[in-house]
Amino acid sequence: MNNQKVRKVVLAYSGGLDTSVILKWLQDKYNCEVVTFTADLGQDDDLALIREKASALGIKDKNIYTEDLTEEFVQDFVFPMFRANALYEGYYLLGTAIARPLIAKRQIEIAKLVGADAVAHGATGKGNDQVRFEFGYYSLNPKIKVISPWREWDLTSRNKLIEYAKVHNISVPQDKTGEPPYSIDSNLLHNSFEGKVLEDPGIESDYSMLQRITLPEQAQDNPEYVEITFAKGDPVSVDGTKLSPANLLRKLNEIGGRHGIGLVDIVENRYIGIKSRGVYETPGGTILFHAHRAIESITLEKAASHLKDEIMPKYAALIYNGYWWTHEREMLQALIDKSQESVNGIVRAKLYKGSVTIVSRKSDNSIYSQTLASFDDENYNQSDAEGFIRINSLRFRV
Amino acid sequence: MNNQKVRKVVLAYSGGLDTSVILKWLQDKYNCEVVTFTADLGQDDDLALIREKASALGIKDKNIYTEDLTEEFVQDFVFPMFRANALYEGYYLLGTAIARPLIAKRQIEIAKLVGADAVAHGATGKGNDQVRFEFGYYSLNPKIKVISPWREWDLTSRNKLIEYAKVHNISVPQDKTGEPPYSIDSNLLHNSFEGKVLEDPGIESDYSMLQRITLPEQAQDNPEYVEITFAKGDPVSVDGTKLSPANLLRKLNEIGGRHGIGLVDIVENRYIGIKSRGVYETPGGTILFHAHRAIESITLEKAASHLKDEIMPKYAALIYNGYWWTHEREMLQALIDKSQESVNGIVRAKLYKGSVTIVSRKSDNSIYSQTLASFDDENYNQSDAEGFIRINSLRFRV
Amino acid sequence: MNNQKVRKVVLAYSGGLDTSVILKWLQDKYNCEVVTFTADLGQDDDLALIREKASALGIKDKNIYTEDLTEEFVQDFVFPMFRANALYEGYYLLGTAIARPLIAKRQIEIAKLVGADAVAHGATGKGNDQVRFEFGYYSLNPKIKVISPWREWDLTSRNKLIEYAKVHNISVPQDKTGEPPYSIDSNLLHNSFEGKVLEDPGIESDYSMLQRITLPEQAQDNPEYVEITFAKGDPVSVDGTKLSPANLLRKLNEIGGRHGIGLVDIVENRYIGIKSRGVYETPGGTILFHAHRAIESITLEKAASHLKDEIMPKYAALIYNGYWWTHEREMLQALIDKSQESVNGIVRAKLYKGSVTIVSRKSDNSIYSQTLASFDDENYNQSDAEGFIRINSLRFRV
Amino acid sequence: MNNQKVRKVVLAYSGGLDTSVILKWLQDKYNCEVVTFTADLGQDDDLALIREKASALGIKDKNIYTEDLTEEFVQDFVFPMFRANALYEGYYLLGTAIARPLIAKRQIEIAKLVGADAVAHGATGKGNDQVRFEFGYYSLNPKIKVISPWREWDLTSRNKLIEYAKVHNISVPQDKTGEPPYSIDSNLLHNSFEGKVLEDPGIESDYSMLQRITLPEQAQDNPEYVEITFAKGDPVSVDGTKLSPANLLRKLNEIGGRHGIGLVDIVENRYIGIKSRGVYETPGGTILFHAHRAIESITLEKAASHLKDEIMPKYAALIYNGYWWTHEREMLQALIDKSQESVNGIVRAKLYKGSVTIVSRKSDNSIYSQTLASFDDENYNQSDAEGFIRINSLRFRV
Repeated sequence: MNNQKVRKVVLAYSGGLDTSVILKWLQDKYNCEVVTFTADLGQDDDLALIREKASALGIKDKNIYTEDLTEEFVQDFVFPMFRANALYEGYYLLGTAIARPLIAKRQIEIAKLVGADAVAHGATGKGNDQVRFEFGYYSLNPKIKVISPWREWDLTSRNKLIEYAKVHNISVPQDKTGEPPYSIDSNLLHNSFEGKVLEDPGIESDYSMLQRITLPEQAQDNPEYVEITFAKGDPVSVDGTKLSPANLLRKLNEIGGRHGIGLVDIVENRYIGIKSRGVYETPGGTILFHAHRAIESITLEKAASHLKDEIMPKYAALIYNGYWWTHEREMLQALIDKSQESVNGIVRAKLYKGSVTIVSRKSDNSIYSQTLASFDDENYNQSDAEGFIRINSLRFRV
Repeated sequence: MNNQKVRKVVLAYSGGLDTSVILKWLQDKYNCEVVTFTADLGQDDDLALIREKASALGIKDKNIYTEDLTEEFVQDFVFPMFRANALYEGYYLLGTAIARPLIAKRQIEIAKLVGADAVAHGATGKGNDQVRFEFGYYSLNPKIKVISPWREWDLTSRNKLIEYAKVHNISVPQDKTGEPPYSIDSNLLHNSFEGKVLEDPGIESDYSMLQRITLPEQAQDNPEYVEITFAKGDPVSVDGTKLSPANLLRKLNEIGGRHGIGLVDIVENRYIGIKSRGVYETPGGTILFHAHRAIESITLEKAASHLKDEIMPKYAALIYNGYWWTHEREMLQALIDKSQESVNGIVRAKLYKGSVTIVSRKSDNSIYSQTLASFDDENYNQSDAEGFIRINSLRFRV
Repeated sequence: MNNQKVRKVVLAYSGGLDTSVILKWLQDKYNCEVVTFTADLGQDDDLALIREKASALGIKDKNIYTEDLTEEFVQDFVFPMFRANALYEGYYLLGTAIARPLIAKRQIEIAKLVGADAVAHGATGKGNDQVRFEFGYYSLNPKIKVISPWREWDLTSRNKLIEYAKVHNISVPQDKTGEPPYSIDSNLLHNSFEGKVLEDPGIESDYSMLQRITLPEQAQDNPEYVEITFAKGDPVSVDGTKLSPANLLRKLNEIGGRHGIGLVDIVENRYIGIKSRGVYETPGGTILFHAHRAIESITLEKAASHLKDEIMPKYAALIYNGYWWTHEREMLQALIDKSQESVNGIVRAKLYKGSVTIVSRKSDNSIYSQTLASFDDENYNQSDAEGFIRINSLRFRV
Repeated sequence: MNNQKVRKVVLAYSGGLDTSVILKWLQDKYNCEVVTFTADLGQDDDLALIREKASALGIKDKNIYTEDLTEEFVQDFVFPMFRANALYEGYYLLGTAIARPLIAKRQIEIAKLVGADAVAHGATGKGNDQVRFEFGYYSLNPKIKVISPWREWDLTSRNKLIEYAKVHNISVPQDKTGEPPYSIDSNLLHNSFEGKVLEDPGIESDYSMLQRITLPEQAQDNPEYVEITFAKGDPVSVDGTKLSPANLLRKLNEIGGRHGIGLVDIVENRYIGIKSRGVYETPGGTILFHAHRAIESITLEKAASHLKDEIMPKYAALIYNGYWWTHEREMLQALIDKSQESVNGIVRAKLYKGSVTIVSRKSDNSIYSQTLASFDDENYNQSDAEGFIRINSLRFRV
């Protein structure tokens, strides 16, 4: 959005290198007041520390916003998405994609609150997140000015960025070996890793970057069981203990993490048409995904379940591509939510060195009929199947 | 097909209790000549023994057909299906469903060869297989007479069946504890188990019935790597050794089996509207499924890949429901096959106690661009994304 | 449902030959009390006359139900369906299919009211309506007994039926030439015709059977305009006059009919796999269909509109196949209804000798931007399209 | 593609105002050799005259390419698309969209022939055609330079364009009233009109701009019949006379045009997210569309036909959006073509004042069974439907 005048901007600030540089650059370039907004989505950052960083870079106290959004994140974003059994390209549980709409929403709200005329983010011009942020901004405020530094500035390589940081006394993180770190996104649903050695899809990673998952080989030798209770398609209890949405997901992360659950290593297709390799760790989400399918398997009719499966790729792509705040996502959500009314019950899963196996599902709303399933049911008239087959095979027989 | 006169019938004969009873019952009831056909699809049965059983039940030698169809099965049925990444209801790799069309086809061919006017199968009136067999029969010979004993006779419970067997000197198998065994289907792609304790979806199975998979807890402690080479979407080599389709799948079963790969325990929706619980072991198929997706991830464009994902549920349902020999399956196959022309390359997977992790994928046809994926690419003009976003967000901004 | 004892049955009674014979046959065969139910869905029958017929065939007065359901029919069935722009196989506006669920519902309600244990209908064993009625019955009362005379009795040809009618003093209708009439279904949405000469799809019909439409060649020479006002996707006024749902559809039928609008002559695929030729006259529905698409064209975003188009064939097939009272239809309806919130405005259509041409559409909720559409818009930055194209063509350029 | 050096450019030259200005501007701005390419796609232009115009604007004779592509256009683009019954947003037969890929292809071929390093087109930065051209260019030659003058120059309004034209002695067309003309695209499949009064979707057009269609009110009073013969899904004869693809479409245009067939007036959604109103005249294409559906109605099985209908919106959108030369379009085409093998036969249509009514369809490959459709068929066992319904309603009854 080059060449626009900006008075006050709300920056999505992570406290990391990139957004710290941006924070400085915005002041330099636009000569505007910068408000920082840092959302706690469960990424284990120390908000107080981030506040200090912003302060050290010259942001006034009243202009530093840090908020714990974990409950809203899980309840209004993660859970609705999990009702759909959403997977992007067969594997990705959309951990980053589902967080962006909330950050964008809160940024726009804060912009209104503080009278800012612009928002800014730290996503690069090659990724999905720029799209997700900006679609969110425009959906919620069509008139907002959007600053996307990576598409504007001349810090077009990591090296230039680091030079700029050094000049402005911004600390540059390194990994254990002195190299620049992976590109990481982290929230209560997942951690994602891109870059470095992962850029070659032919090279095996040692997964040493994982933060939540104990690798299967190092996980404990005893399997563990976990029981999840669902009400209207959402998980409400773990092992019989009712938990808030965020606490429930935290609990599942903890349990799943120690059994190596939820590691995914894929090459995916970004919205903008670039293929990229990502490593994801989603321990709790992986358990939840399978448990939800399992409770649906005894409470949803076939036709409802197949309809959900057919629209799922579209729903997942909408979220992946940043179209959360749209009419079409809401239309699909209405369809999905309508299906969840009797998705209630308890699923028991066994966790062991990287695997989740569903071992039982029970529900007061079960439409599974043991009598029908059984071999010896004298009520079901097997000869009905004759007519069923004869009618359905009419096309072959004429 | 009550009350029709039958002269000669070709029975799909497994050598087990049910089809042995049927063999006898067909002679009694229809007073017709019975031809038995037993296909070796990799189910580890002793065909010579089955031949003896048929003989003992009065079938003339020239009327006993036993054939090894494993190569045709894998090449013309399993591989085309795996090109589609077909999963029924999210988990089931369609191991039984994909075998039925071949058996039906061969039965119809033998019927023609021996001048039979009818075919018969041992599938019950509550399951999917009756449909799959009969759709196959009618598609390939609209005039064939079909005998489905389970829908015709009065042996309407297991007990009656066993009585009938005893009267006719047919041996009745029991499991180790003296109980009737699981309902099993077995071929080179999978073993499936239904019935008994599985009929209650709330009860955990001990999986002691598994035949190919060492349970993850008992699997070896060292992970193992396997490399699969694909050509035009089909696997052609394992660890650098070129193998025939059947041998390749055998090899993957062996490797996957010892690492506990491919156990699935689900409640599924049968075509005829009954929910039933099944346990499947598909070690080689599970490796193949993930490896195929992985090689596609670097060789297929996003749009082609998403199109495949969108039509997949329909394709899988067609196979599950017995519509292999149909115009619509061929139409979808044409679409799928068209996509596989450059799906070539090598995938490396790590197997460990139940998990398959893809660790690398390489291809001469790779369209993955390391330059594009990389953070530091000065060729890609990040500002292009500005226009992309502005146009795509026009809807939000007006 | 052979061989069940029936105490009291509610028959969907049209007053025509078939259901009059059924009325008699039910008494003979089941020796049960018969309650007749005749719904006025706008089919121009004289309900008093039908009441007399039932009476003459021995039905007690208190057992004769006749009800005007036109408003409920249009408001709760026709309008929700038209929100979806539902067309079966490209042409059929589902006039018969959408009426059956309401008749079934009311029959089940009356059965409860009068303490009947069974319901009956006059649909044959070769058509769609048997399925639509019976799915409705079972959905709304799983325990109800269903009598389908055409599938039970031995009156297996028209001649046998007529003999039975003569024996029981039931009058047999003939068309002008003394032949049996077309098989007709009629309600406020459409008239349908099947049978007779139509059975050969290669023979041109003279359409002399049409009842509502003046044939285009005989229609008046002056075009006529009609304006329809929509609110939340439903039509509420015609030419500025607010009308109840049924009256609105009546009005459009009248206007459209005199201009020859809404004749369709197709070969369609019945649910049970038989192809059949039908002639339909749907004057008001045809105007409504195009007008609704037109108002959506300026009030719905592209993505919402395309999503509706993609799911439409499935929605239409559900209704055609009798699955109105199902979870999956409600799920799709939730999606559709969610899209209609701002589908408000006025559409002007020109009617002339069989054609409907939409000539204007206006809406306070219009998202059509004349500025954007215009050639000379200096606000839209044409160079944004550069980035849009460059990103979307990245796949071609690498 | 600002600031690139261009040596020689192939311009898609229509001979109209815009591309004549571009022709001049390319020489001025890029100081490069300009090659003009004008395709005859049936748009009734005088190619000799266009050649003169190019010559007058300074293009060397050897650099002026004019070619009759009508047969290739209809055979390789129009017919394959019509196999799919493609309609964009319910009405638009894609007349412009389907022509662009051929022009792009030929431009790239000529570029290779003459050693040009760039191509250029006259589409504006607000429309679909820029995308369609450029996707075509890049698909067929990823390295080609593309000049899109409308997105580059400062002639950002009609007035500036006209001034530039006057300065360079380029003639400026006006309509009868002295106003600028509609924005027109014309080829053998259709004429399209945009702009001027059409920009307000609330204003009725008098359709005086139509060139091929006699308005229904002015069309002859006698209906006319036309018979179209199809082979493998493509039309091959009209009224018994075998015609080449282009001549066949010409013939149908002529017949349809005089009966007012094929006028469409809609608001559509452009790829780039702008809604625009277009008026289309597609006389022959409209007849063809309905005739093709009709011949399919007796030769395609239901499942094949429904599958085509389900994928159609996606196929149409691909063509609309310019993705003809892609893997996914070819995949869908493979599916569609696979379905057309037995789509053979003769369809008879009645044309009258704007309406096409299909009155008969005949085929040696017909799978319509008059016996099955008939009321009195003693072969079909109506009681089979009992089992069909009982199995399909199991879900309601448990």
